[in-house]
Amino acid sequence: MRAKVVTIGDEILIGQIIDTNSVFITKQLIKIGIEVKKIVSIGDTKQEIFNMLKDSCNVFDLVILTGGLGPTNDDITKEAFCNFFEDKLVHNKDVLNHIENLFKKFSDNPINELNRAQALLPSRATLIPNTFGTAAGMSIQKGSTLYISLPGVPFEMKPMMENFIIPDLKKKFKCPFIVNRTLLTYGKGESYIAKKLVSFESELPSNFKLAYLPNYGRVRLRLSAKGENKNRLESEMDHLISKLYSLIGNIIVGYDNVNPIEFEISKKLIEIGKSLSTAESLTGGLLSSRLTLLAGASKFFKGSIVAYDTEIKKQTLGINEKIINDHSVVSKEVANEMALKVRNMLDTDFSISTTGNAGPSKGDSDAEIGNIFISIASENGVKSFEFNFGNNREKNINKTVNKALELFFHELNNNY
Amino acid sequence: MRAKVVTIGDEILIGQIIDTNSVFITKQLIKIGIEVKKIVSIGDTKQEIFNMLKDSCNVFDLVILTGGLGPTNDDITKEAFCNFFEDKLVHNKDVLNHIENLFKKFSDNPINELNRAQALLPSRATLIPNTFGTAAGMSIQKGSTLYISLPGVPFEMKPMMENFIIPDLKKKFKCPFIVNRTLLTYGKGESYIAKKLVSFESELPSNFKLAYLPNYGRVRLRLSAKGENKNRLESEMDHLISKLYSLIGNIIVGYDNVNPIEFEISKKLIEIGKSLSTAESLTGGLLSSRLTLLAGASKFFKGSIVAYDTEIKKQTLGINEKIINDHSVVSKEVANEMALKVRNMLDTDFSISTTGNAGPSKGDSDAEIGNIFISIASENGVKSFEFNFGNNREKNINKTVNKALELFFHELNNNY
Repeated sequence: MRAKVVTIGDEILIGQIIDTNSVFITKQLIKIGIEVKKIVSIGDTKQEIFNMLKDSCNVFDLVILTGGLGPTNDDITKEAFCNFFEDKLVHNKDVLNHIENLFKKFSDNPINELNRAQALLPSRATLIPNTFGTAAGMSIQKGSTLYISLPGVPFEMKPMMENFIIPDLKKKFKCPFIVNRTLLTYGKGESYIAKKLVSFESELPSNFKLAYLPNYGRVRLRLSAKGENKNRLESEMDHLISKLYSLIGNIIVGYDNVNPIEFEISKKLIEIGKSLSTAESLTGGLLSSRLTLLAGASKFFKGSIVAYDTEIKKQTLGINEKIINDHSVVSKEVANEMALKVRNMLDTDFSISTTGNAGPSKGDSDAEIGNIFISIASENGVKSFEFNFGNNREKNINKTVNKALELFFHELNNNY
Repeated sequence: MRAKVVTIGDEILIGQIIDTNSVFITKQLIKIGIEVKKIVSIGDTKQEIFNMLKDSCNVFDLVILTGGLGPTNDDITKEAFCNFFEDKLVHNKDVLNHIENLFKKFSDNPINELNRAQALLPSRATLIPNTFGTAAGMSIQKGSTLYISLPGVPFEMKPMMENFIIPDLKKKFKCPFIVNRTLLTYGKGESYIAKKLVSFESELPSNFKLAYLPNYGRVRLRLSAKGENKNRLESEMDHLISKLYSLIGNIIVGYDNVNPIEFEISKKLIEIGKSLSTAESLTGGLLSSRLTLLAGASKFFKGSIVAYDTEIKKQTLGINEKIINDHSVVSKEVANEMALKVRNMLDTDFSISTTGNAGPSKGDSDAEIGNIFISIASENGVKSFEFNFGNNREKNINKTVNKALELFFHELNNNY
């Protein structure tokens, strides 16, 4: 089973946007045992799309394309399909009804003929409904290749993959099981690790593969495997992972997470029935927004005080002026007070606070740029953590949010 | 001039990492007039790399590859090069010296033979030095195609592009000038805009191209052009941009990339010396985080109350229980109260509030999923706006933030 993922759009070829669609699609496919052998980005020209369709025919079993299905002149995927499949566009009544309904319900603008033209599909295409938008998806078989075309807008494409395509592919193709596990190691380089794993690698079963992914002093080790029997595969994998632990267990931190950490936090908090609040300074609401982006956040998250200004820290959070004057707003003491006060004020079981100097210039504090404090308060009191992440503002804010989530996750896991 | 960018590594094909290397490379190339026609990701197998090298030969003028140059067994780009170019690996003394120096200076671990083997290069390859790492780059010409291989680690690859490859390509190839400009529009869909631009598009010079990039209620319009004479190209571009302003100037906010709308808001608020706070429900802190991501936010932004839970709306923001009971938490009345209360509480000139039902299920209100209220309070009182953005949670949250920023920007521009 060879699959190819294609994203269409000049915006990718000039580096204007980062292609995250193919990341989502490959992740979905691998879950059902379909291996992506190639990811390709091409421009919005009929010739490039046509060539790609032709070159893939009978070479790949599955080609999933995104993009080029909008209502404007630069959207030409359907035309290229008609050329390649020697087909013509016909009106699809269901799609037209759906588009008209969307406009009636959600748009300030009247529907026009460009929107109506989105109901045109190649006559031989099978419709893939787009619940959240006007650009219908479609699939056509040619030779041994199944072509699937989806809109490029991520929030439209993603549910189409999950609700229609994945269940359908699961029925259509008998695929092997694919298992990937990634261990995170800390403190040694890849050549050091490789030396320790010489015999481990030479003894690896042929359906297993080991990869080294170095990144700023951390090396992730990914072990991947393919097989027909899921249970046997999993138990072989378990065996090999424990072998890795016996060889380099001293530098292994644990598994690299599959689910985002806020998902794990959410699951755990709902499970133990506890609530959370945040008090944010340098992260400016990003921490709470990450926690509330997930469905079901209202089951554990009560709210946040974004005390960006020092006055708000005093007046709204009620932090004693003396503490701020004695230690500065960027200090362990203020971070602790922020966590304690917000936990009390919003009446939650846990709270997380952040304060720091994100840069590029110093604020209401003499703290070094990049100097950051995170505190976590619970029924057991308050703990604080200090970091310096360097002098890039965006990196400081984002790294603080990631670090805060990571610290809180460990706190939860160790004590609850 | 046809260029192709190739990233090598199974981690991309299983969606474990997002390929940002190709984004950086394409941006660098376009600056010197080299158009990337294809971006490809393939796995760590000799056959896939060999096939890619072969398929590109005499089809592309330039192929830039990243990845597969590390010291471990899964790094096989050099072997694939030797197969394809019918060459063999020889020791490069300069590279060996450099590797030994790096280990002496920066590593806790002793150098081993895997590191030393990184000094092996195909005999016909031209060395591209890697100042920050042990994996040397290389280039080889075959037929009309120049192949360049670089390490996959971004902080190693980027300076190699900037310091060696770009200056070299500039000398080697005579390329046209490429100009891209992207306008950001607010509040109208792409089909609405396309209708307004029918004759504009049909009269576009053949070396110009217009693209529509929709994203959560914003449409970016990108005009790109290619030509020999830079000055003429720029002046044609200026002329076309002013034509766009005359046609749809009412919805154009300004150039994209350069200034997001929160930057314009920040500039204006600092200029008129006024302050802002927010009270957020469904947006969960995302609105304030967008406003504080920019440097200098502390000059106008005081803070936010993220009142996610209804109790917090009552107790922290002090919204009268009767208003909530009479109108529900998702209502114009509650949005207005949230804006008025937070403006007062945090003592700011302006405030923005959001409340709504993001979905996927109904919360503390009977409001329809997607039903959203945004209010803006100022010295002149409070204004509210109602929307329904549909039933996708991620879309509802992001669109509400964009809409709130857009409404506030208009409010500022019209009255101050």
